[in-house]
Amino acid sequence: MAGNLILLLLLLNIHFTSSDPDPIQDFCIPDSGPSPLLQTHLSTYPCKNPSNATAADFTFSGARSPSKPSPDTGFAGLSVTPSLFPALHTLGMSFARADFEPGGVNPPHYHPRATETALVLEGKIYSGFVDSGGRLFAKVITKGEVMVFPKAMVHFQMNVGESPAVIFGSFNGENPGVFRVPATVFGAGIKEELLEKAFGLSRKEIERLERRFGRKEVEL
Amino acid sequence: MAGNLILLLLLLNIHFTSSDPDPIQDFCIPDSGPSPLLQTHLSTYPCKNPSNATAADFTFSGARSPSKPSPDTGFAGLSVTPSLFPALHTLGMSFARADFEPGGVNPPHYHPRATETALVLEGKIYSGFVDSGGRLFAKVITKGEVMVFPKAMVHFQMNVGESPAVIFGSFNGENPGVFRVPATVFGAGIKEELLEKAFGLSRKEIERLERRFGRKEVEL
Amino acid sequence: MAGNLILLLLLLNIHFTSSDPDPIQDFCIPDSGPSPLLQTHLSTYPCKNPSNATAADFTFSGARSPSKPSPDTGFAGLSVTPSLFPALHTLGMSFARADFEPGGVNPPHYHPRATETALVLEGKIYSGFVDSGGRLFAKVITKGEVMVFPKAMVHFQMNVGESPAVIFGSFNGENPGVFRVPATVFGAGIKEELLEKAFGLSRKEIERLERRFGRKEVEL
Amino acid sequence: MAGNLILLLLLLNIHFTSSDPDPIQDFCIPDSGPSPLLQTHLSTYPCKNPSNATAADFTFSGARSPSKPSPDTGFAGLSVTPSLFPALHTLGMSFARADFEPGGVNPPHYHPRATETALVLEGKIYSGFVDSGGRLFAKVITKGEVMVFPKAMVHFQMNVGESPAVIFGSFNGENPGVFRVPATVFGAGIKEELLEKAFGLSRKEIERLERRFGRKEVEL
Amino acid sequence: MAGNLILLLLLLNIHFTSSDPDPIQDFCIPDSGPSPLLQTHLSTYPCKNPSNATAADFTFSGARSPSKPSPDTGFAGLSVTPSLFPALHTLGMSFARADFEPGGVNPPHYHPRATETALVLEGKIYSGFVDSGGRLFAKVITKGEVMVFPKAMVHFQMNVGESPAVIFGSFNGENPGVFRVPATVFGAGIKEELLEKAFGLSRKEIERLERRFGRKEVEL
Amino acid sequence: MAGNLILLLLLLNIHFTSSDPDPIQDFCIPDSGPSPLLQTHLSTYPCKNPSNATAADFTFSGARSPSKPSPDTGFAGLSVTPSLFPALHTLGMSFARADFEPGGVNPPHYHPRATETALVLEGKIYSGFVDSGGRLFAKVITKGEVMVFPKAMVHFQMNVGESPAVIFGSFNGENPGVFRVPATVFGAGIKEELLEKAFGLSRKEIERLERRFGRKEVEL
Repeated sequence: MAGNLILLLLLLNIHFTSSDPDPIQDFCIPDSGPSPLLQTHLSTYPCKNPSNATAADFTFSGARSPSKPSPDTGFAGLSVTPSLFPALHTLGMSFARADFEPGGVNPPHYHPRATETALVLEGKIYSGFVDSGGRLFAKVITKGEVMVFPKAMVHFQMNVGESPAVIFGSFNGENPGVFRVPATVFGAGIKEELLEKAFGLSRKEIERLERRFGRKEVEL
Repeated sequence: MAGNLILLLLLLNIHFTSSDPDPIQDFCIPDSGPSPLLQTHLSTYPCKNPSNATAADFTFSGARSPSKPSPDTGFAGLSVTPSLFPALHTLGMSFARADFEPGGVNPPHYHPRATETALVLEGKIYSGFVDSGGRLFAKVITKGEVMVFPKAMVHFQMNVGESPAVIFGSFNGENPGVFRVPATVFGAGIKEELLEKAFGLSRKEIERLERRFGRKEVEL
Repeated sequence: MAGNLILLLLLLNIHFTSSDPDPIQDFCIPDSGPSPLLQTHLSTYPCKNPSNATAADFTFSGARSPSKPSPDTGFAGLSVTPSLFPALHTLGMSFARADFEPGGVNPPHYHPRATETALVLEGKIYSGFVDSGGRLFAKVITKGEVMVFPKAMVHFQMNVGESPAVIFGSFNGENPGVFRVPATVFGAGIKEELLEKAFGLSRKEIERLERRFGRKEVEL
Repeated sequence: MAGNLILLLLLLNIHFTSSDPDPIQDFCIPDSGPSPLLQTHLSTYPCKNPSNATAADFTFSGARSPSKPSPDTGFAGLSVTPSLFPALHTLGMSFARADFEPGGVNPPHYHPRATETALVLEGKIYSGFVDSGGRLFAKVITKGEVMVFPKAMVHFQMNVGESPAVIFGSFNGENPGVFRVPATVFGAGIKEELLEKAFGLSRKEIERLERRFGRKEVEL
Repeated sequence: MAGNLILLLLLLNIHFTSSDPDPIQDFCIPDSGPSPLLQTHLSTYPCKNPSNATAADFTFSGARSPSKPSPDTGFAGLSVTPSLFPALHTLGMSFARADFEPGGVNPPHYHPRATETALVLEGKIYSGFVDSGGRLFAKVITKGEVMVFPKAMVHFQMNVGESPAVIFGSFNGENPGVFRVPATVFGAGIKEELLEKAFGLSRKEIERLERRFGRKEVEL
Repeated sequence: MAGNLILLLLLLNIHFTSSDPDPIQDFCIPDSGPSPLLQTHLSTYPCKNPSNATAADFTFSGARSPSKPSPDTGFAGLSVTPSLFPALHTLGMSFARADFEPGGVNPPHYHPRATETALVLEGKIYSGFVDSGGRLFAKVITKGEVMVFPKAMVHFQMNVGESPAVIFGSFNGENPGVFRVPATVFGAGIKEELLEKAFGLSRKEIERLERRFGRKEVEL
């Protein structure tokens, strides 16, 4: 019978929401119920009975090895939020592992809902951010150094060493979100006339960028 | 003697900060002291004695007429935060007036610290935003309609009518901040090699964009 | 089958709640499901799948024309919160349109959960607020001027011009709430003896006010 | 020399502000410095060195005995915020003692920045609040009972017993603020024409109420 | 049919969560539905329709008389949170009554989610806290005095008078939580080797403490 | 002359405070002024002019190598908050490096103002926490694994491997604070009679613990 409710909830495609600060319980591990499918569809609220929680719920082991970098950028990112590590829900934190081939680039992007502290685990990284006054703060950092990217500032990284590089990023929000600037601007389907004027590029140049970033056809 | 302290503060170039939510007073109008210069340098904390406040402190009259649009974009924006309207300090709100010539464009940008509700006062505006999933929500809106741009999402506007258009934007933060995407990415001085790889553009194309957006020379 | 759950929820008359700041998603449009009735009864949490959202969800067109002023006050207000414009949910903003006949009055009231910035769209308005120290900040403002009313302060407006006046108010909360002072105090059914002593009015005067504001009969 | 700075600060009449939630230190006892005058003028920020704090700083002894009730209402209130008990600053709490003669009345009022839990220490109190839907929740409560008044709702109390009554109110904000409805509305100097229309009272009746609540002469 | 949903929810053992600050409604009394069992299992979100709320919902009468002190400590505590007094939900406050026999002790403990103001109702209490710098602030306080314990600081109390003592504690969170230090450290089942090294105690001493605090057998 | 103000501020031993969430600027690097002494005494508010900030301000290099473990516990911790890394101020994050000899122990402790995610950089660590229900969640974790400790829960770690172990902890608060349980309880000077009753230990045992944890002599 419980299965039926699960089914109903799936059919309704219900999404719940919540806010980051000041939970009123010690923790709230989302309860996926009997069906593993739920985890992706029903996002946040119902919590597991704390008496059924175990130490394994509070441990994440999936960031021990590198992901495969994309051929385009030589970069791979694994973002660990409650959808991968449910216990993070309501705790106001999440983290990410980033792997870079030599020359690999994490394109300019920002996280709308968190500050990030990025620890270099391996390698030599050109790393930086731009503030809202257009000021650039960029520097090559190496193993054991930490750079902080204030909440929602545009930042980026590039492996400027000869060997693979690894970064461990920590966030003060359970779901920081990410806007990759090139794909956001050229891949979403914004009116081309607007982009031409905004960037001072020709229609042809805009169209090339749109193809690269998989512009979706959008009807107004 | 008070003047001396002012002078000292100016010399020290002190900046204060504060947070948006839940003030512990009714209001706090920054006290610029005897020197008008202070307003720009000493940002936020010391408040005027409330007994010296007047109704004029809580009224802003500077957004009644249009600013002159920039020749590049046909767009002019006036952002009204505590630096123009001190009484907004600690109240968690600010606003802006945007004027568009026919064809004028407010380039893709985002406000890291506020949601915006944009009311069309005049004209016909193609207006929209992209969410963190790369989904575009864009539409032509006209006089009297309101579009909401969730906090820190990339959004943009273009006057698609025949006559000037005006928008009044309201924000739920006293200092929303703004990142204009083209200038942030191409004008701050990010390493060109990184931009080439991130956008799939040639060095020459990157340099043209940098010139347009006034790239600053940066030394690492 | 989904309909049955909806029905059950309706029967249970469930209300959900949430807090204003720091959502952990881009947005959360309440999902009313197949039944339009839901909107009023089931208030806040379950969100629409963002892939089904459209630009229309983020646009509100219902404040383009005036509402009919009440004969008593010459005033009409339209408050636009998530119950009218669902996309505002979790975004920490809402707005209102107020129409005033010449001489029309928006009685002393306050919003417990938001600061308001009031933009005059048309006319000449005597507008002001009282702070917790009993200080009055009031002034006549005209088209294009903005007055700010700090969170939860008592404020009021009156059209002192010869023609209709219109105000567009913006709030930094999705559900500011409103307490109209006269009706709250004289219409709710507070013990008359208490009101006599509090206001220094006679029982007869209190009763006249109660009739005017529709005092409810209350049993202790 | 320190005295000079104090003097300067006094001359400048500086007020600082802060927000209630989530301090970044254990506590922050405002440091009044060598001059006792400071306490009233310089409100909040500079903290005493924690090494100089003592247990006495965290203890308040001034609410052990009743204050003298006002002849008008038979009611006396003592509000204990950081101005009386500095250690409360940044801790997000404050409290109050209220004494009532038989028949004494705490007029309809609200606290814009806090919920209140009111514990009856002695006596028999008619106590209640009105919500934003105009619903009244009122009841006679006696020694040992607690009533909760949600943040910013209009509430009131009256001693309906034969002997003195005492209430101890606790607040979840360091500076809840208070708007006493009668004085706020009739004592601040709001335009009489507006009040006539808002309450449906004659000019003469409004003027009588204004006299009672000490209307200030205000020039527009 | 509503009963079935209740049953389903019970079977799923669903827990909801929420955050303390800034509700978007006046109040939200959890709706236990037709089944009284629900109250303990389904914790927080669904609210009662405000039209069905009564003054009794906002009043708590269960703290008028003392609880029976434990023979071990001579202390009894009654914590009043939404599970006992549902109307507190979303209002950011709760309270507690503590009774002490002469010599009775409330062991060192802390509340992770709230500051406490403790009012002595009867008696003579040695009361204090330790801050994160290891500084002790302790003092004997008597009837009518209030001590404040900043959020999450370790604090404790002992009746040092000849007669029973009573304290009324107020909290700025609806669910402050409590960690009693002795039981937390010696009763939870932490590896003994770790505790030996941390406290400099022998295995035998650790085991005695574990027996006292009911150490649970834990398998790694 | 600036030096004089600095001196005055030092003499006054001023401490400022601030709250974690929602800064109203991109960042605020505390400005230590000309005197390096300031950094420790004047804690938080005045910010460096952002135009004088450099990439180095946002980078921390001091956690690349281990600190020397204490002989008592075989453990060394380096906490990186704004006092070591000023740019973290207002950004809501901080971090720590912990080094463990084989058998080294980080005693039961808690952070009142932050959740922690602990990444194992090297070694094999028995790691866990206790929740407010007295439930233990503990587990051996190894290189690349992450355990999360919810805000203000008691947690601990022990190197159960044969070689040195290293942990990198991240916090969602700029100043998490730390209460080490043994020293807090036995080193602060709490009345011995209270501790005897609370732990069920003899006066002699309490005194031994007090000597170990450097009990301070305290006068009431």
